[in-house]
Amino acid sequence: MSTNPMEEAPREYRVIGTRPIRHDGIDKVTGRAVYGADVSLPGLLHGSVVRSPHAHARILSIDTSRAAALPGVKAIVTSADLPEVRDREEALGEGSTNPRHLSHNILAHDKVLYHGHAVAAVAATSPHVAAEAAGLIQVEYEVLPPVLDVRAAMADDAPILHADLRTAGGDPKKAGTPSNVAMITEFEIGDVEAGFAAADEIIERTFDTAMVHQGYIEPHNAVAKVDPDGQATVWCSTQGAFDVRHLCAEVLGLPLSKLRVYPAEIGGGFGGKTTIYLEPLAILLARASGHPVKLVMSRSDVLRATGPTSGSHIRVKMGVTRDGTLTAVDASLAYEAGAYPGSPVRMGAMCMASPFAIENQRMVAYDVCVNRPKTAAYRAPGATNAAFACETIVDELARKIGMDPLELRRKNAAHEGTPMVHGPKHRRIGCAELLEAAQRSDHASAPLGNADGPRKRGRGFATGYWFNAGLQSSATISINPDGTASLVTGSPDIGGTRTSCAMMAAEELGLPVELVRPSVADTDSIGLTDVTGGSRVTLATGLAVHDAAQDVKRQLCERAARTWKCAIEEVRFDDGGVDSLVQDGERLSLAELAKGAGRTGGPIVGRATVNAQRNVGSAFGGMMVDVEVDTETGRVDVTRCTVFQDVGKAIHPAYVEGQMQGGAVQGIGWALNEEYVYDDEGHLENDGFLDYRMPVALDLPMIEPVIIEVANPAHPYGVRGVGEVSIVAPPAAIANAIADATGARVESLPMSPPRVLAALHTRP
Amino acid sequence: MSTNPMEEAPREYRVIGTRPIRHDGIDKVTGRAVYGADVSLPGLLHGSVVRSPHAHARILSIDTSRAAALPGVKAIVTSADLPEVRDREEALGEGSTNPRHLSHNILAHDKVLYHGHAVAAVAATSPHVAAEAAGLIQVEYEVLPPVLDVRAAMADDAPILHADLRTAGGDPKKAGTPSNVAMITEFEIGDVEAGFAAADEIIERTFDTAMVHQGYIEPHNAVAKVDPDGQATVWCSTQGAFDVRHLCAEVLGLPLSKLRVYPAEIGGGFGGKTTIYLEPLAILLARASGHPVKLVMSRSDVLRATGPTSGSHIRVKMGVTRDGTLTAVDASLAYEAGAYPGSPVRMGAMCMASPFAIENQRMVAYDVCVNRPKTAAYRAPGATNAAFACETIVDELARKIGMDPLELRRKNAAHEGTPMVHGPKHRRIGCAELLEAAQRSDHASAPLGNADGPRKRGRGFATGYWFNAGLQSSATISINPDGTASLVTGSPDIGGTRTSCAMMAAEELGLPVELVRPSVADTDSIGLTDVTGGSRVTLATGLAVHDAAQDVKRQLCERAARTWKCAIEEVRFDDGGVDSLVQDGERLSLAELAKGAGRTGGPIVGRATVNAQRNVGSAFGGMMVDVEVDTETGRVDVTRCTVFQDVGKAIHPAYVEGQMQGGAVQGIGWALNEEYVYDDEGHLENDGFLDYRMPVALDLPMIEPVIIEVANPAHPYGVRGVGEVSIVAPPAAIANAIADATGARVESLPMSPPRVLAALHTRP
Repeated sequence: MSTNPMEEAPREYRVIGTRPIRHDGIDKVTGRAVYGADVSLPGLLHGSVVRSPHAHARILSIDTSRAAALPGVKAIVTSADLPEVRDREEALGEGSTNPRHLSHNILAHDKVLYHGHAVAAVAATSPHVAAEAAGLIQVEYEVLPPVLDVRAAMADDAPILHADLRTAGGDPKKAGTPSNVAMITEFEIGDVEAGFAAADEIIERTFDTAMVHQGYIEPHNAVAKVDPDGQATVWCSTQGAFDVRHLCAEVLGLPLSKLRVYPAEIGGGFGGKTTIYLEPLAILLARASGHPVKLVMSRSDVLRATGPTSGSHIRVKMGVTRDGTLTAVDASLAYEAGAYPGSPVRMGAMCMASPFAIENQRMVAYDVCVNRPKTAAYRAPGATNAAFACETIVDELARKIGMDPLELRRKNAAHEGTPMVHGPKHRRIGCAELLEAAQRSDHASAPLGNADGPRKRGRGFATGYWFNAGLQSSATISINPDGTASLVTGSPDIGGTRTSCAMMAAEELGLPVELVRPSVADTDSIGLTDVTGGSRVTLATGLAVHDAAQDVKRQLCERAARTWKCAIEEVRFDDGGVDSLVQDGERLSLAELAKGAGRTGGPIVGRATVNAQRNVGSAFGGMMVDVEVDTETGRVDVTRCTVFQDVGKAIHPAYVEGQMQGGAVQGIGWALNEEYVYDDEGHLENDGFLDYRMPVALDLPMIEPVIIEVANPAHPYGVRGVGEVSIVAPPAAIANAIADATGARVESLPMSPPRVLAALHTRP
Repeated sequence: MSTNPMEEAPREYRVIGTRPIRHDGIDKVTGRAVYGADVSLPGLLHGSVVRSPHAHARILSIDTSRAAALPGVKAIVTSADLPEVRDREEALGEGSTNPRHLSHNILAHDKVLYHGHAVAAVAATSPHVAAEAAGLIQVEYEVLPPVLDVRAAMADDAPILHADLRTAGGDPKKAGTPSNVAMITEFEIGDVEAGFAAADEIIERTFDTAMVHQGYIEPHNAVAKVDPDGQATVWCSTQGAFDVRHLCAEVLGLPLSKLRVYPAEIGGGFGGKTTIYLEPLAILLARASGHPVKLVMSRSDVLRATGPTSGSHIRVKMGVTRDGTLTAVDASLAYEAGAYPGSPVRMGAMCMASPFAIENQRMVAYDVCVNRPKTAAYRAPGATNAAFACETIVDELARKIGMDPLELRRKNAAHEGTPMVHGPKHRRIGCAELLEAAQRSDHASAPLGNADGPRKRGRGFATGYWFNAGLQSSATISINPDGTASLVTGSPDIGGTRTSCAMMAAEELGLPVELVRPSVADTDSIGLTDVTGGSRVTLATGLAVHDAAQDVKRQLCERAARTWKCAIEEVRFDDGGVDSLVQDGERLSLAELAKGAGRTGGPIVGRATVNAQRNVGSAFGGMMVDVEVDTETGRVDVTRCTVFQDVGKAIHPAYVEGQMQGGAVQGIGWALNEEYVYDDEGHLENDGFLDYRMPVALDLPMIEPVIIEVANPAHPYGVRGVGEVSIVAPPAAIANAIADATGARVESLPMSPPRVLAALHTRP
């Protein structure tokens, strides 16, 4: 509690901060929730997609005649059925891309650019007939040499993916030549050379990270129906129904009003379900066949042809004074965009050094096309790669000057007003508070102990920064005649946001949270609501819910004033009812006002819309991790793991902890196991969960979450987004722990046994 | 155009008054629209209802053991599974009833009260297994004598349906005795005896009308799922999803927040889908079985066990002076309520003489239980029966004093300020305007000509009055980024109200109506919206749409003011965009404001809720009809038919005309063909459309609609409800035409060939 007499006492909450059972929980654990692939319609056809067996090839011809002749086949589409789409320069947000490229990614135009690239699609009376028909479509290719590595793709003699691609930014002399480098972005603050001159110790290293997939359980899916007047309806698993509507409209050249998108329940997204793959195909096939059409990906399709996040090559140079002041950072980052431009490399550059107050910074970011699937967003896109590089060098610098790495971080912690490399200054952030919490933690003071035989123990720590997003949201709250409330938003619920939003409505209206019924509406039934991503739903949709509740409360006051025949200024909503300020003890509960609403003017419905850009609170996370390294096999086990995060205010602490734990686990998988393995011709060799190795519960200790709450002053409850930043620190934290255990620095992800063994053998 | 300089020129409309194609038209004509029976869910069970073979019997026992043992049977329910429900006195609106009675109508409690009364329900893996199981349920009955006729039911020695029923109103001495008369209501204005004393001619007659069904094409249906936490979802064909929610909650003892109701497309209702039958059974069976359950009625179920409208017995006495002033009316009306109290007899009494300015009126209304299905609302409930009596006597009085019947009506026409028998005075109405339009019509001056052989021609006219309803509605309008709009209401669309509502939104926002996408939401997704009934949707939901559009326009002005950095008072929305009042030529179109909404504060969503009770405009209708009577067979053919109606303002004239034509046709069926035929034991003998004879297109001439627009001053566009009143006049108009042709008065409905022949044989 604050003791500053100028500050208000913190608000006491009744619902916020508690841990109610989620409203959608029973539906989900009993298998009743309707996911995209569960949707069925009368006369439904099933689709299959023909995919490229090559990583890079020119399409010479597509012969669909044999497939079309197969009984049961109702429609076949190729890129010839897609309208030409013009380039659009303005960005769409994370994971987005140029609509012309998006169109070509949905169905390859003149070239296939990665193994699994969609070439054609067919709809038939059963999935089996569709698969057989897909096999009968003859595609003639001229195979071209692929380029799979970001450095190889930047070489002067590299095979070129896009003959018309010219580098934006960077050296103007090179701007006229075809290139795989889509964009070069430079950020600089201070005087980097002077910073290094002032340093006592300087370290410069290069790092590599592998392309990794979000690994959501539910494959992509789409069901579409198209009426004879062209009106299309789509059901799909997506993080943003309005984005699906917008992107499909762009790719298909339709007005928004011709499209209605119903977001089904979603079995994980983590950024990967923010764009479209199957949806336009389902619409085209439904339009061509006159039947509704369903398309569902296999796991192989998901891994080969949806958007993982970038592998990268990063060079970082940092300097520190003997007394522990970080003086300069200079970095270049090259990220795989995949087949079309649009990696998160700029965001990686912006996030890299943002946990630190370093006066002199320079970052150069390269967005590079390679013959891999077009990347999509993945939890704090770009930041994890960058943190792996920067946070291990900080660790090494600390050890070099003999300072505790946590103390070095605390001494250089970013704070309100610290400028970031891309210009803006930090707002109120919880970086220092997080580091102090880590220093004070049980974990920090627990002895490591010794392992047996060839096993060595170590402890590492790293931090991570993520902007979080604001964007637009809408909410409506209807008060039912029995005093319960229905809450409608447009935010597909991935992480429990139905409940977090219902809790905020319940808090404002003085209702038990069980009496607020949250639902997620389709694009025709709620105001525009941007993607569930950027950790924005509880922040921004929550803000819309808060504002909609104020609208309800204002109306409740009006109704009470009308009932008491007094001025609205003479009444006040408080704690689930309206009090008269002039008549002692006169009070109308929400339930009473709801019951009488018909007589006082009709139903009570509150609504609000927001653009929450100014309400964003940035996120800091940290991980402290103990590992055991088997020095004979190179195997690394995580034995203890604590995740720290400044969440602003935890609306539903259990779900916040779930986000922290989930991000940590994904970061651990990225650190130790996961990678896309291509052969030299660019064929993905591990296109299933047996070979694409994600950590499961047996691989991990309990992840201990430590919530730090430094309120975001731009949000009524102090909320910051919590969904992403916990993935940022783990690879660096584990690398630091491996170094602590063995003295060896592993500079490539994943830190798989062969890489660890190699590092042990070359350690200085 | 008004020439009064004090009056504003009438508003010029751009969209209102045009005839666009309905938004749901393609879906409906191509069979894609999803009606209740089209809904399917994984694991769906099918239900069957056991119905009473007796009209009146005590249930001694129900043995479900054999049915339960049948493989595939998953649940069986009887009235023992329904909670006890207390009486509620307050009325729910048209067609509503006491919740205890409603519960007993859904599953018979201790007695069955009509042939087809539901006794038990079963859910099984297929409709066939369910039907077989229903046949295995053994119900032991003690058969009681039935009473089917309203006069017999009022007799002192009548079999009593409800031992606990005491008459409300009427003679207080009789109030203590069990009775089939649920309520006696008396209305009186003026001095009736003095009125008759002043009359030169007095006629008194009695009339009978048969019980008739709405005859909607789509049988009742319900699909329900119940989650393990008790959360229930219902899909059904209904005129009011919120009413289904409310009534199910009452009957099942659930809070509203445990129920979500999705209104499916509806294949006709006409008042008959304003209550519940299958919905609670589907919920109980789904809860008991753990599976979703679907129930669909057969046509026989619909006719035997849903709510038709009352047959009735009516006595009317009216007086007129020689110069054509109606001096008094005295009437008693007894209406069949069916098995439970709640006929529309009070409304019949209130409407009967309301087209006339008669100073002295007395009406006594009897609500009478009989062993027939509980009646429900049917288009202008109660008014048609009453008009048949009153409007034929007016015709006869006119002929008696040698005055043209239309002229007698015009001379005595009700007008603003005329008191009605139940007290209130008419507001601005179009009664006189309608009569003048009828007098001026082509039809009125067209020669009748002569028919061949035994066929005789005649022309008749009658009027009808209906209150119309207001009630509560909600609407939201979301502006999409491309400048199109999504409109959400909670009014199931029976008569084209999606389009009429979209037209009003388009009118206000300056959009083409095709760019407004209307949809009908479920009970969780829109504010409370009362039943689609009482001709209220275009009036009341339309008012909410109008107000929601004002909310949008206000926000558009705010956004423009923010863009121009000026005060909101300095901008004005006009014709699809916002003009600056201070900067000449500065203008932002809706599309431009929509595209930039993110930057000016987020999405634009307007909402409004209304209780439209004060906005109701009452309806007058009239029918002029030519008939040919075959005096040898008694067959009556309608050869020409013109329908006149004061609609206030026709938003979509084609749909208004459709309502006028549809009501006229139903009135003609009621007049000539339709009736429930019971045998002496109370078994319905004509429980299918082959035997329950509704008119089809071949039976009818083109119905010519004449729209009269006398604006309702309490509505922004002058709208009155248009859905009901056109059914009121036809039976009387046809009776008057038969009398004109033959001199014979038929005083019972239907005026079927035997009745017409009988009247011809007894004519004076």
